[in-house]
Amino acid sequence: MEEALAEMLDARKSVVTERLLDAMRYSLLGGGKRIRPALLLECYAACGGKRPETAMPAALAIECIHTYSLIHDDLPCMDDDDLRRGNPTCHKQFDEATAVLAADALQTLAFELLASSARDTPLSGELIYKLAIAAGCQGMVGGQMLDMQADNSNDDMGILAVERIHLHKTGALLRWCCEAGAMLAEADNAQLNACSRYGKAVGLLFQVTDDILDVTASSSVLGKSAGKDAVQNKATYVSVLGLQRAREVAEEMQELAVAACEPLAKQGDHLRALVHYIQERGK
Amino acid sequence: MEEALAEMLDARKSVVTERLLDAMRYSLLGGGKRIRPALLLECYAACGGKRPETAMPAALAIECIHTYSLIHDDLPCMDDDDLRRGNPTCHKQFDEATAVLAADALQTLAFELLASSARDTPLSGELIYKLAIAAGCQGMVGGQMLDMQADNSNDDMGILAVERIHLHKTGALLRWCCEAGAMLAEADNAQLNACSRYGKAVGLLFQVTDDILDVTASSSVLGKSAGKDAVQNKATYVSVLGLQRAREVAEEMQELAVAACEPLAKQGDHLRALVHYIQERGK
Repeated sequence: MEEALAEMLDARKSVVTERLLDAMRYSLLGGGKRIRPALLLECYAACGGKRPETAMPAALAIECIHTYSLIHDDLPCMDDDDLRRGNPTCHKQFDEATAVLAADALQTLAFELLASSARDTPLSGELIYKLAIAAGCQGMVGGQMLDMQADNSNDDMGILAVERIHLHKTGALLRWCCEAGAMLAEADNAQLNACSRYGKAVGLLFQVTDDILDVTASSSVLGKSAGKDAVQNKATYVSVLGLQRAREVAEEMQELAVAACEPLAKQGDHLRALVHYIQERGK
Repeated sequence: MEEALAEMLDARKSVVTERLLDAMRYSLLGGGKRIRPALLLECYAACGGKRPETAMPAALAIECIHTYSLIHDDLPCMDDDDLRRGNPTCHKQFDEATAVLAADALQTLAFELLASSARDTPLSGELIYKLAIAAGCQGMVGGQMLDMQADNSNDDMGILAVERIHLHKTGALLRWCCEAGAMLAEADNAQLNACSRYGKAVGLLFQVTDDILDVTASSSVLGKSAGKDAVQNKATYVSVLGLQRAREVAEEMQELAVAACEPLAKQGDHLRALVHYIQERGK
């Protein structure tokens, strides 16, 4: 994945100005767990896909979307973070204007990648449509906005409100990864459903784990500022439910995700392993 | 166009949070000359297109891209503008975080609109691809970055460098409008070429006119702060060439644009009229 991302950016060397590409490269190649491409490619394989190269443009695209959202989330007017993946955030390394633009260009690049694969995968129109829904005002950006509004509100939030934020902010994209992988593999309905349910559970598991890590891990382990949720008085699974109950929710989500893999039989083994990888992070 | 834009946003009422949609609506419906949709729809008609409704998703999409770019350009870390189309800029009316997110969501929406029309227009994959190239690091965003770098440099810029910025920053999208209109009308090669050349000339004409207006018009006429180019020491057609020569360039671009319409014969009359409309603004 690292190589594929680097090559993809290098292929854009005819870009108008090197500094913009540098900032895009800095953020896109600056570490990251690549969980979204992994979910996409593993769902592709779990549904019997045999030519992973046909799924690569979508895998690259989702990492572009994810990275763009991180760059904007880190801006001073948003979460105001100095550290990301153990390095200065994009606007710290470059400047705010460059960070805004690099992220904008990464979003555009995601759609370019999906559209350029249209000849290989006739369903790219549908993938683009679904990605736009998952990433836009009805999905990720909507969830981010909801999150900002919650931060600024004095109301105590219930767990359903926390879940609602995350189903949009992180869940919609993670689910898209799983469904896109299945669609690219020309999955049957049972497989597609399995991947979709898996994606939903994994999305919530991912968030609970993140919330747990924020209170239990150090900044150096996280590669970003730890303990920020509490400082910012953010409603998280941990702040609303307490650490013990949050760990139980993680357990439940893990079980749901594993159960979703059932129709995939043995082909779902890597997806099951991914669940454990994600949950192990929280320990 | 105003109605179509409003209806399109209203159809997204199931959005996650009303405030985000409010900010998108505020900027998208807050005036604007709608020159890009007009170019697209008129090129569609000039190439013999008879069902303008098939070109509407693309016309709405381009206005979303344009508006997103204005919102980000106006941010304090970029051009730091308080006034746009006679109203407070998005971040002044709402706040910076909301403005960043509303613009992000408008970019996503553009691709959603194009992808959702895939069933009607099998060429939507190609339109999306070309729009991504025109709007991203190789096009509009690249040009904006180049513009920011020029502002921060002490070097005197030549007219070729000014032109290079604008061919990317505004020209690429305007050209896409013209080519997309032709493609949607299933234009032949001569028509497509005519629209493409027309788009390039109109793009430069548009920019020269803008530069002229910045020194000759009042803020109330412009709907944005006048005289900012000089204050920011921006290299423009006027600052590099002087007002008189800039007016001559506008004249030349007008002639080029009109000449490009020749293969379109009588069907190109509205495109010719649009050229005069744009140039009249500068007087």
